[in-house]
Amino acid sequence: MQAQAMLKTHPNPLSVQDALAECVEACFDCALHCSSCADACLAEDGVADLRGCIRTDLDCADICNATARVLSRQTAFGESPAATQVKACRDACQKCAEHCEGHRDHHQHCALCADACNACVTACDNLLGLID
Amino acid sequence: MQAQAMLKTHPNPLSVQDALAECVEACFDCALHCSSCADACLAEDGVADLRGCIRTDLDCADICNATARVLSRQTAFGESPAATQVKACRDACQKCAEHCEGHRDHHQHCALCADACNACVTACDNLLGLID
Amino acid sequence: MQAQAMLKTHPNPLSVQDALAECVEACFDCALHCSSCADACLAEDGVADLRGCIRTDLDCADICNATARVLSRQTAFGESPAATQVKACRDACQKCAEHCEGHRDHHQHCALCADACNACVTACDNLLGLID
Amino acid sequence: MQAQAMLKTHPNPLSVQDALAECVEACFDCALHCSSCADACLAEDGVADLRGCIRTDLDCADICNATARVLSRQTAFGESPAATQVKACRDACQKCAEHCEGHRDHHQHCALCADACNACVTACDNLLGLID
Repeated sequence: MQAQAMLKTHPNPLSVQDALAECVEACFDCALHCSSCADACLAEDGVADLRGCIRTDLDCADICNATARVLSRQTAFGESPAATQVKACRDACQKCAEHCEGHRDHHQHCALCADACNACVTACDNLLGLID
Repeated sequence: MQAQAMLKTHPNPLSVQDALAECVEACFDCALHCSSCADACLAEDGVADLRGCIRTDLDCADICNATARVLSRQTAFGESPAATQVKACRDACQKCAEHCEGHRDHHQHCALCADACNACVTACDNLLGLID
Repeated sequence: MQAQAMLKTHPNPLSVQDALAECVEACFDCALHCSSCADACLAEDGVADLRGCIRTDLDCADICNATARVLSRQTAFGESPAATQVKACRDACQKCAEHCEGHRDHHQHCALCADACNACVTACDNLLGLID
Repeated sequence: MQAQAMLKTHPNPLSVQDALAECVEACFDCALHCSSCADACLAEDGVADLRGCIRTDLDCADICNATARVLSRQTAFGESPAATQVKACRDACQKCAEHCEGHRDHHQHCALCADACNACVTACDNLLGLID
């Protein structure tokens, strides 16, 4: 994924375009991991014990996806709800990471998903330090 | 749309299911209006003056869509990022409504879109009064 | 939801705007039912037997959501991938309906979801009769 | 993005998991480029001449996003609408690529977007060769 190269081509690129690009990539990556983790949990023998994990995965995938799209836009950024949405994304990633951490030793998909969620929390924090 | 009837069929429906259903419907309705308003603005002669409106429409559509999906889920609701996401949705709707209100007299699509956004703000507030 | 009133406000509304509006509404309604049905299935005691239903629900929700957004746009419609996407949506709804029909007598959410899927198949067919 | 590593963690990974992972990544990458290209086109002085490009970008972003999510799932794959959705995705990418190719020399974002769309067409073809 080449978010940085793409965001640079905007007619009026923002000064925060690099932090924006990193957060866009972290959001898409987290969305992939959460959507895939929900599906892997669903196929586990112990699916009945993974209900909370699946629900939080699905929420986090939806929220990360929407956030990635919002952050892919630089036009009229100052009037956008980007900062509030990044905060919601941070919360979703943190809640999903907590769930998946609990299953890290039993399910490799939960371990990878927790890592992607934690990376997205960091990217959100970095961006919020600049735009909030 | 029959969100109320559908949410009632959950094996363990929440006590706030009615406010949830109303907010789900308001979010989907707002997503439709925002997506359609962005497209109508794009076709206007004065599209160059509607850039901020289009961007905010697209953000609001993405955020309302994600919020609707999060709120369609009642399993493990207490561990979900629902409340934070509804706050972000409220912010997106409010910002989009402000943009569209400014064009209410010139563009019927902006008038209808502002109404849908305002209705979604109210639905978010009602739900937040119960879950936040 | 007022898709018809909204699509009418486009500067250059299509002659097929009514069939478009009906399909947009059917898609959003089906997306809600599928997302909610996946979550209700997840909470059932017999979740292990509902894996296929949940997966098909999630696919159908994603596909209906994307289709609704595509169909909310009338600008440059002739150059769009709308017809192909509506065919994919029809297929997703049909596959999801078949799954949910199998559980109609045991789960009310599957019965309502199958109805929403079948209604969306009909709306897709009606639209395809005009644009394909 | 690490789709391959993630898809490998599924309890019952498919034999086509590598082609699936490549297509998932191509779809997310294309979704990012299309969403960002629409926003960059919107900020161009000649936005009025880029309406078709923006509409096709937005459609392609929505369709690629939904396709990526469908392909992130391996549970009950045989019953899913994956193949039909990949065909719709291929069509959306091809139509968007054609639009953006026409602006390649004037707008760097259209050049990068056309490349991402063409790469996604190839990934869809590769996958369809295995699952259709």
